[in-house]
Amino acid sequence: MGMALSLGRRGLGRVWPNPNVGCVIVRDGCVIGRGWTADGGRPHAETQALRGIDATGATAYVTLEPCAHHGKTPPCSEALIAAKVARVVIATGDPDPRVAGKGIAMLRDAGLEVITGLRKAEARADLAGFLLRITQNRPFVTLKLASSFDGRIATATGESKWITGPDSRRMVHAMRAQHDAVLVGAGTVRADDPSLTVRDLGVSRQPVRVVASGRLEIDASQLVETIPQAPLWLCHGLNVDVQKWTDLGAQTFECAVQGRQIDPVDLMQNLANNGLTRVFCEGGGSLAASLLSAGLVDEVVGFTAGAMLGAEGTPSIGAMGLDQLADAPRFELAEIQRVGADLMHRWVRP
Amino acid sequence: MGMALSLGRRGLGRVWPNPNVGCVIVRDGCVIGRGWTADGGRPHAETQALRGIDATGATAYVTLEPCAHHGKTPPCSEALIAAKVARVVIATGDPDPRVAGKGIAMLRDAGLEVITGLRKAEARADLAGFLLRITQNRPFVTLKLASSFDGRIATATGESKWITGPDSRRMVHAMRAQHDAVLVGAGTVRADDPSLTVRDLGVSRQPVRVVASGRLEIDASQLVETIPQAPLWLCHGLNVDVQKWTDLGAQTFECAVQGRQIDPVDLMQNLANNGLTRVFCEGGGSLAASLLSAGLVDEVVGFTAGAMLGAEGTPSIGAMGLDQLADAPRFELAEIQRVGADLMHRWVRP
Ligand SMILES: NC(=O)c1ccc[n+]([C@@H]2O[C@H](COP(=O)([O-])OP(=O)(O)OC[C@H]3O[C@@H](n4cnc5c(N)ncnc54)[C@H](OP(=O)(O)O)[C@@H]3O)[C@@H](O)[C@H]2O)c1
Ligand SMILES: NC(=O)c1ccc[n+]([C@@H]2O[C@H](COP(=O)([O-])OP(=O)(O)OC[C@H]3O[C@@H](n4cnc5c(N)ncnc54)[C@H](OP(=O)(O)O)[C@@H]3O)[C@@H](O)[C@H]2O)c1
Repeated sequence: MGMALSLGRRGLGRVWPNPNVGCVIVRDGCVIGRGWTADGGRPHAETQALRGIDATGATAYVTLEPCAHHGKTPPCSEALIAAKVARVVIATGDPDPRVAGKGIAMLRDAGLEVITGLRKAEARADLAGFLLRITQNRPFVTLKLASSFDGRIATATGESKWITGPDSRRMVHAMRAQHDAVLVGAGTVRADDPSLTVRDLGVSRQPVRVVASGRLEIDASQLVETIPQAPLWLCHGLNVDVQKWTDLGAQTFECAVQGRQIDPVDLMQNLANNGLTRVFCEGGGSLAASLLSAGLVDEVVGFTAGAMLGAEGTPSIGAMGLDQLADAPRFELAEIQRVGADLMHRWVRP
Repeated sequence: MGMALSLGRRGLGRVWPNPNVGCVIVRDGCVIGRGWTADGGRPHAETQALRGIDATGATAYVTLEPCAHHGKTPPCSEALIAAKVARVVIATGDPDPRVAGKGIAMLRDAGLEVITGLRKAEARADLAGFLLRITQNRPFVTLKLASSFDGRIATATGESKWITGPDSRRMVHAMRAQHDAVLVGAGTVRADDPSLTVRDLGVSRQPVRVVASGRLEIDASQLVETIPQAPLWLCHGLNVDVQKWTDLGAQTFECAVQGRQIDPVDLMQNLANNGLTRVFCEGGGSLAASLLSAGLVDEVVGFTAGAMLGAEGTPSIGAMGLDQLADAPRFELAEIQRVGADLMHRWVRP
């Protein structure tokens, strides 16, 4: 199952709207087949693992319950049965109503031995994006903040490049590649004109770039220029003329508004409805505050440099309107690491 | 020498105005004497190590050049000569003009073999407070900042207790104990009425508490109440009536002013002139910014919690008036550690 989990993680950021599943086929103590969900979500891991082998009497280890429904591919449970697999070991169940126990039932009805729950917690962590999309209609959200020692993401004059070093930036690109989409607020686009693509890592599938902007009063020339490499999604408020943007090749999504800003809950629902399971939010401070206040952040990754910028700098997290310390969102420390000259720290929802 | 360095570190925060020296006497491969500078700075490490042993023909390992002058104690070089030590191994020289090579010369003149420079860098790091006091007339300054993930040291409503957890606070108390003094700005005294003593660690010598306040318009009831346990030094500006404070048992020091605030360079000179070698500054944000801008901070220790407070909170570092990122003070990452639920990170002057 450990190997199946590793294989499944290869699909992070590449298989949406489907889950990143891993599958290993073992007979007589030997691994005879390995598979993981292919780019774009198909073929599924089981099909990949069974391809070209004789799996009669073998054991299949799979990180998520095999599907039971005829979608664009025939159900994986059927494929395992047809391959005469004797035993299926499953890490965790699939909450998708079209599966939800039916995959397991189908296997058992066909006389296969089924064992569930092996390394369940790890599988659920790896599949969190898909599970949240199915059960809460929102993606898994990682918030990344690269700041000075004192939590500033730009100087008073707006300089924000090179606060953290090249090793941190490289790690950020690798993290982008493990998410389905990169999300920023309009303020970041206005200040930095970023392209938000994954660079220098030779990835075959670029994450979607998502911008949240009430009225789309943005320039976004880098984002537009790179549309041939990676999709650009614009999440905007009500009554916005989007013709210009669709002509340029961007996709637009109307979201509910809350005051003068996009309702963060509706923003995330839109993204989930359109298939995203893992979103990497890179700020800025206002959007970060909005997502945190709405309880939509699952993981926070900090890159901290040894520079001191002082109180005039742009805060990494904008106004949150907290009255009491007890109301502050709190995360649990999951990982600390030195990255070049910087400190990387990862915190997760308790 | 490794053992001598460890012994020397026992004196951190306890031996000012003297250096925290360690000494080990070895003969025939056996350690026959060990010593470190006693609380308050006397007796010196060499005297302690030689006490009660016959050191004829032995080798003395000492972290700092033995003193050569008749102060309140006879010179240690003389003591080593009188004890008939054959060889002295010294980590680093003493820049004090009353010593500065004279200790080594005295030993050599008496026919002892002298070796210098063994583990010099480590010794200089451990003795940095004393070395800075002698060479730059200022103490070694450690700046500690306990903040939320986003670099806030208090909420908008001024709540600052319990941002970080009990393990971090315990470590802060241990750090206080390794410094000669704890320093805060008047704003922290006004907001928190702290006592700044070392608690629950059974220490025999409390650090001096130092407050920087232009006009001494502070209440400081906890600090005053604890004067029987630990000295209270008040560093103030010009023309301040200090009678009330001296009556209460505090010591007062007039410092030069810069605008409406105490000149941080003069503040540190005052502390060095009065014997302090290691100062632990616990904020708040304004004083931290002032010390950083003046280049007076040698080490920064961050305790970061997983709570998010938002931009209305008090910034860990106040306004620094930086125009460019390139002008920002930068420190190098020296240590990262999980402390309870928090993250401890230590950065040093490059
Ligand atoms: N160092 C780093 O890691 C890093 C990363 C990102 C940004 N930055 C810096 O951060 C600064 C930008 O931060 P920022 O706080 O001004 O901008 P931001 O958070 O990127 O964007 C805020 C804007 O997004 C739009 N928006 C839509 N829905 C929102 C919602 N629910 N909550 C909040 N905003 C929403 C609004 O613009 P509309 O008026 O269009 O609706 C709002 O003004 C720049 O200086 C940039 O360089 C640094
Ligand atoms: N979480 C933590 O680790 C932590 C630690 C400390 C403080 N805090 C919080 O920080 C807040 C206080 O911060 P703060 O920035 O207001 O106060 P501060 O830095 O503690 O004190 C600033 C005051 O110190 C005096 N001062 C004298 N010389 C100065 C100089 N060279 N530079 C700066 N100040 C000088 C001035 O008061 P005069 O008018 O008297 O001259 C000035 O207003 C409180 O909310 C406290 O709870 C948190």
